[in-house]
Amino acid sequence: MSSRRSFRVDELARQVEGDLIGDGSIEVSGVASLSEAGPKDLSFFADTRYAAALTKTRAGALLTAKRVPQLQVPQILLPDPVLAMNQLIDLFHPPHQLVPPAGVDPRARVADSAHLGDGASIGPFVLVGDKASIGARTIVLSGAYIGAGVHLGDDVVIWPNVVIREGSLLGSRVTIHPGAVIGADGFGFARRNERFIKLRHVGIVVIEDDVEIGANATIDRANFGRTLIRRGVRIDNLVHIGHNVEIGEDTAMAAQCGVSGSTTIGKRVMMGGQVGMVDHLKVGDDAIFIAQSGVIGDVPAGAKVSGYPARPHREVLRAQAEMRALPRLKAKIRALEQKLGRLLS
Amino acid sequence: MSSRRSFRVDELARQVEGDLIGDGSIEVSGVASLSEAGPKDLSFFADTRYAAALTKTRAGALLTAKRVPQLQVPQILLPDPVLAMNQLIDLFHPPHQLVPPAGVDPRARVADSAHLGDGASIGPFVLVGDKASIGARTIVLSGAYIGAGVHLGDDVVIWPNVVIREGSLLGSRVTIHPGAVIGADGFGFARRNERFIKLRHVGIVVIEDDVEIGANATIDRANFGRTLIRRGVRIDNLVHIGHNVEIGEDTAMAAQCGVSGSTTIGKRVMMGGQVGMVDHLKVGDDAIFIAQSGVIGDVPAGAKVSGYPARPHREVLRAQAEMRALPRLKAKIRALEQKLGRLLS
Amino acid sequence: MSSRRSFRVDELARQVEGDLIGDGSIEVSGVASLSEAGPKDLSFFADTRYAAALTKTRAGALLTAKRVPQLQVPQILLPDPVLAMNQLIDLFHPPHQLVPPAGVDPRARVADSAHLGDGASIGPFVLVGDKASIGARTIVLSGAYIGAGVHLGDDVVIWPNVVIREGSLLGSRVTIHPGAVIGADGFGFARRNERFIKLRHVGIVVIEDDVEIGANATIDRANFGRTLIRRGVRIDNLVHIGHNVEIGEDTAMAAQCGVSGSTTIGKRVMMGGQVGMVDHLKVGDDAIFIAQSGVIGDVPAGAKVSGYPARPHREVLRAQAEMRALPRLKAKIRALEQKLGRLLS
Repeated sequence: MSSRRSFRVDELARQVEGDLIGDGSIEVSGVASLSEAGPKDLSFFADTRYAAALTKTRAGALLTAKRVPQLQVPQILLPDPVLAMNQLIDLFHPPHQLVPPAGVDPRARVADSAHLGDGASIGPFVLVGDKASIGARTIVLSGAYIGAGVHLGDDVVIWPNVVIREGSLLGSRVTIHPGAVIGADGFGFARRNERFIKLRHVGIVVIEDDVEIGANATIDRANFGRTLIRRGVRIDNLVHIGHNVEIGEDTAMAAQCGVSGSTTIGKRVMMGGQVGMVDHLKVGDDAIFIAQSGVIGDVPAGAKVSGYPARPHREVLRAQAEMRALPRLKAKIRALEQKLGRLLS
Repeated sequence: MSSRRSFRVDELARQVEGDLIGDGSIEVSGVASLSEAGPKDLSFFADTRYAAALTKTRAGALLTAKRVPQLQVPQILLPDPVLAMNQLIDLFHPPHQLVPPAGVDPRARVADSAHLGDGASIGPFVLVGDKASIGARTIVLSGAYIGAGVHLGDDVVIWPNVVIREGSLLGSRVTIHPGAVIGADGFGFARRNERFIKLRHVGIVVIEDDVEIGANATIDRANFGRTLIRRGVRIDNLVHIGHNVEIGEDTAMAAQCGVSGSTTIGKRVMMGGQVGMVDHLKVGDDAIFIAQSGVIGDVPAGAKVSGYPARPHREVLRAQAEMRALPRLKAKIRALEQKLGRLLS
Repeated sequence: MSSRRSFRVDELARQVEGDLIGDGSIEVSGVASLSEAGPKDLSFFADTRYAAALTKTRAGALLTAKRVPQLQVPQILLPDPVLAMNQLIDLFHPPHQLVPPAGVDPRARVADSAHLGDGASIGPFVLVGDKASIGARTIVLSGAYIGAGVHLGDDVVIWPNVVIREGSLLGSRVTIHPGAVIGADGFGFARRNERFIKLRHVGIVVIEDDVEIGANATIDRANFGRTLIRRGVRIDNLVHIGHNVEIGEDTAMAAQCGVSGSTTIGKRVMMGGQVGMVDHLKVGDDAIFIAQSGVIGDVPAGAKVSGYPARPHREVLRAQAEMRALPRLKAKIRALEQKLGRLLS
């Protein structure tokens, strides 16, 4: 943070192919949100929720899709300020050098039969089991456990203290955040004479390309077959995915969601935080789940649901309105009783 | 997975003492669910939910309690196909060789005063604290922390990166899945002059025989005395058990449940996912909690509850029906108002 | 536990400046709750919920604010028995010696550019990254990861297998319980052409003095700027704090709560277990959240809310009463219909 580099605004505009308005010779040395930016920071405006912050910002330069007339600082106009900002961040915050820079740390324990791709990095206190295979440029950080026969694709990042149990197969460009557990036994027991008998889980976990799994999340292995997380899925912290679940491409699940065994979720589904789903459900593509929904039945494609038990969100809102109208209903009944009483007396 | 062995169906029938129908010389080399099985796989039928999958299965042989006439493949008839399958799995999937096979990995740190039973295995990057005692054939995998004075019984499996803090006592045949934390301080504070003062937690965690604790679950130590998980309890991933909680024998808790301090739960209780219980409750034997229940009062033995605040499930269903009937109620009131209006006009 | 020391009750009374009633020469060798105490244990009474336990206790001596006439054992009278007990505990249970006692374990990996304060302890299998700074008497236990540039203040305790990612700044007297993850990337993505593009998170986590973070909790780093946990905050196990959240002084959050990105929470707020909050909310000082509340709007200072969507708790209780009155409402309507029917027939 100490040795910050400065960049001229016209250079930045050129890099993101934006149109510059104002003095291009002005320099910025950091990036920040509208409310936190100072005169040496570049900021961006892309969400009307931040319109109030925009009027008060002290940012020294702005990425924006539409010119902001009231701001005197240089502005870079371009269609997607969010992505432009994301692109420029690397100039101001070069990615941290992870440990170790490349190769195998002498404090790691890598099985002789494991395969390491070109440029792979294995940190200290990492175990890589028999016949595991680590892709090119993949980074496994301190304290992670890569079980026997695990496959990691290229450009994967395994953060510290992640556990990936035997047989799990991960694609390329997957990120597993610290403490996540991939491939633990599913919660499957047979109950006989009031006692549980553990059922062996010989299935695996398959995670396709471009998936991200949050910190301390847990993805259980299948009983038979596989638990399947498809390309592009984003799973937040402390989420639980049960055995034999399948999650479709580009689906996103916010923190602390839980999905029980054998439920199948479609593509591009959006789940707010703390949503729960029971087992053996089918959820269609593009469904939307409001935070804390409790889902106990199938959900068709495109549906938007909320509440417990989860129902179409419009019905839930109507039911809430009806609840709020109950005192009025009671008053009406009292009025009717009185009128009728007078009539009959 | 590459060098699969094959087994004749009549051999398998003999092993599980089942009655063979069909050609016993046919061989299978794997196990799979009905929907995923191919002609070289053994499958099983035990749950009517899978009746549709049964009609379409391509399995090469079947374990079943009742003959399935429409299937032409060899069938092994026996009373409990689930347990038979569980028994045969080991043939097809010999348990993975864990690291290390036995003894103490040179990369572990085991206190001189610790005791190791016959055939115990301590993996790399494991710490075993002063006076800890590890039972016979117990396996402690990579990166686990076994605090001072901890006792692990025989045939225990501690998966990677588990933390068991000082003084915890575990019985035999206990399994702790990766990342679980046993014996962290309970959430107990005294609030004085608007600030919190931490209360020392000098109690312990006691886990009896045959218990299973899920990945990244947390079981807090007692303030005084002990947090007690009794024989045969099954706790799923990401569950939280507060200080001084007691859980009765053969109770099962699905993922992400939370139980607050000093609550006592009976035997054979079943809890769906994401159930929450406040502190100091008493829950009787054989109670059933539907997923996401929020429990704020005692629950008698045998009760089935759901919703927030949790009530008898039948009442909750009735209340939901009444909610759905509200529009009809409103229409009736309108009709009454009109009739009465005409009468009075 | 074996070599317990004994203490005379009059000595104990002197230490906590309490008034002794009864025989001061009696000795106790342990501390326990009222229900678990035996004749050699000191116990305490401070909460009327334990009045029943008080009448049955077998404790050998008692700390209490008011004399308990029916008990024959020596009693120490003083204004705050909870704090007195907490003070005396150390006599009976000297804090466990953590590993290592001081200095750097030879099995740790500490960067040359890291700074260690006087009396700091770095356990085995710990990684301390470049330019990290560890305060005086701070203890980092086995398997923890301290990323590059992390600052830990004085007298901090980092329990085993904690992960603190690069750039996080922690104050003094902070405790991070096992498996917690500080500073993982926030859940921030841009969705373009139905696919997610990861947004780099270059912000940090700042944790001020006297904070406690529970086992397997996750505190995400900010997108820009910082996620801020202010002085004295207590966060329980398995809690999730999203990117750019700010939590005010002396606020307490019970287990499994989740707070989404950019939400700001005031001082001395109390949250029961499993409470969820959506993003970009503002919560005032001293607000109270009943367990399992689902919060989707701002909450003013001092409010007490519950349910989903969270509303003032009194309204929720009234709505529940109205729900329970629905069958009576239906009966009244039926009666009205019958009377009116007779009138019209």
